[in-house]
Amino acid sequence: MAGGVGSRFWPMSTPDYPKQFIDVLGCGRTLIQLTFDRFKGICPAENVWVVTSEKYAEEVKRQLPEVADDHILREPCRRNTAPCIAYVSWKIKSINPKANMVVTPSDHIVMDVKEFQRVIRSAMQFTNSSDAILTLGMKPTRPETGYGYIEADLSYPSTNNKEIYRVDSFKEKPDLATAERYVKKSSFYWNSGIFVWNVNTIVNALRVYQPSISKVFERLLPYYFSEKEQELINQEFPTCENISIDYAIMEKADEIFVFPADFGWSDLGTWGSLLANSSKDPHGNALIGKNIKMYESRNCVVHTTQEKKVVIQGLDGYIIAEKDDTLLICRLTEEQRIKEFSAE
Amino acid sequence: MAGGVGSRFWPMSTPDYPKQFIDVLGCGRTLIQLTFDRFKGICPAENVWVVTSEKYAEEVKRQLPEVADDHILREPCRRNTAPCIAYVSWKIKSINPKANMVVTPSDHIVMDVKEFQRVIRSAMQFTNSSDAILTLGMKPTRPETGYGYIEADLSYPSTNNKEIYRVDSFKEKPDLATAERYVKKSSFYWNSGIFVWNVNTIVNALRVYQPSISKVFERLLPYYFSEKEQELINQEFPTCENISIDYAIMEKADEIFVFPADFGWSDLGTWGSLLANSSKDPHGNALIGKNIKMYESRNCVVHTTQEKKVVIQGLDGYIIAEKDDTLLICRLTEEQRIKEFSAE
Repeated sequence: MAGGVGSRFWPMSTPDYPKQFIDVLGCGRTLIQLTFDRFKGICPAENVWVVTSEKYAEEVKRQLPEVADDHILREPCRRNTAPCIAYVSWKIKSINPKANMVVTPSDHIVMDVKEFQRVIRSAMQFTNSSDAILTLGMKPTRPETGYGYIEADLSYPSTNNKEIYRVDSFKEKPDLATAERYVKKSSFYWNSGIFVWNVNTIVNALRVYQPSISKVFERLLPYYFSEKEQELINQEFPTCENISIDYAIMEKADEIFVFPADFGWSDLGTWGSLLANSSKDPHGNALIGKNIKMYESRNCVVHTTQEKKVVIQGLDGYIIAEKDDTLLICRLTEEQRIKEFSAE
Repeated sequence: MAGGVGSRFWPMSTPDYPKQFIDVLGCGRTLIQLTFDRFKGICPAENVWVVTSEKYAEEVKRQLPEVADDHILREPCRRNTAPCIAYVSWKIKSINPKANMVVTPSDHIVMDVKEFQRVIRSAMQFTNSSDAILTLGMKPTRPETGYGYIEADLSYPSTNNKEIYRVDSFKEKPDLATAERYVKKSSFYWNSGIFVWNVNTIVNALRVYQPSISKVFERLLPYYFSEKEQELINQEFPTCENISIDYAIMEKADEIFVFPADFGWSDLGTWGSLLANSSKDPHGNALIGKNIKMYESRNCVVHTTQEKKVVIQGLDGYIIAEKDDTLLICRLTEEQRIKEFSAE
């Protein structure tokens, strides 16, 4: 899933060029490339599918030349994750009804790729031989109020895989007191938005719980991989309800499983999370960019284009982000105002 | 005089493109253009001379198309103001021995141009009819330690011009306590580096006090305005002593005059002086650049290229300067370290 607009990372990320296409970590690979890389050895490139906006399709092709053009699905408008997943699921099912799928955002990070791959392999083994809807739960390390939570029923490990449990309930983004309560219990996990299932399972679940969305993609069955597909998608996709897969399926279906995992995951939803997930200098500064000099500065996250020379003196706890023709300097504690700052 | 390298204004000003060639105030004209403009109505363009580095000559021509190529003098190396003034003085004398001269840096600012022109006209009237060496003294508004001072003998106004006094002594850049003492007296003025004299006076003074420098330019007399001039200057100019006109003449000659004046002058030697001399928003921020938004910020000087969008939140008393591929963020109180910051 690569259709996000990444507005919270302005000015690094803009609707014209959102964060999945950016080398956010300064490691030489963009977030979508890192996501692609994480599946090497698990999923051959010819089985990778990308659902994105029409306007980002060329950038996806440029960044992921390994992915065939007809595996890049172009949404004419944003309708959240349920229509996105429905679209690609119907297409995959039309050519491989037995496919086993992993659904993942393209703009998250994973620090421990080896553990990620172990978890994904184990999860796919599980869904290969069951009709389970499986979500990955992340062991929380702090009372984060920016994530939804999954409560697992730890008394019911699945019979096929002792690491996997039934989901008791999904919890919306909590307030701080609630988040603190969640973190103290061992049965609460962050909802990562990474799902594993076989294609029949999700298609059937959508048919049951989202019949109107399902009808759209069912009707288009004769046209997938044809010249008419895009034209029809452009007509029909906008009629889908704007709804997340969590609301559309997860909170409705009876039998959902969670795989609690711990592979250094972050959705990189905020500059603060980038700071938390980056390697830092001895003063706690995350410096992304080749030529950044810090004097008497602490706890800053600096993100600049590679060629910039940057000298920063006397700042504590600031975001300094520069891209093309835009510069942001702002206290990390004020980053929820970035949408306000980025408005014209 | 347009040969300075402006290192204290890094990164806006660099040795490749120093501050005299920059629209420092964001008014649409560079400092050298503003300097040229100030003399309109006083000195016809064909009588303007620019002494600069060889590497800046093309930029001078571009910015001052009114100045003829053979009025742009190209120094092969930096030798401070005495050789610079000697070179142009010998050339001017060779074509007009009765010329009346104003010598001015090209990277200072003057807020009250009308008063500046009144003072210059009055000063030139004075030197037109006398062999006086005249310097403009600026009425100090604060105990500035970055300027040299001139002590006037206020009991001796000149007979020809009641605004002009004999100089008692030149004072080096003082420490703060001394500067505070100076400012309390009415007889101390900032040394502006703006001089008025007729060409014979300065040539004679140089012959007396700087014979070795004088010999260089005397020897070249047959070659000025010829094809050989630049080649010979390139050979001979580097042999001149590196010395300011203050040390070379002012502090040695007996009869020096000062014209105390008050026309909102600054040498723009520091970011702080730019802040002091710029128009400010209600929170004391000097914002130079078209698209700068400030939130909860005070007493900052922001200087960016015209096209940039800049958002700054939560800064008090900082320099934020961006040019091409370089960004500086630094407390104004630390700006004396800019040379350190700009080093590779």
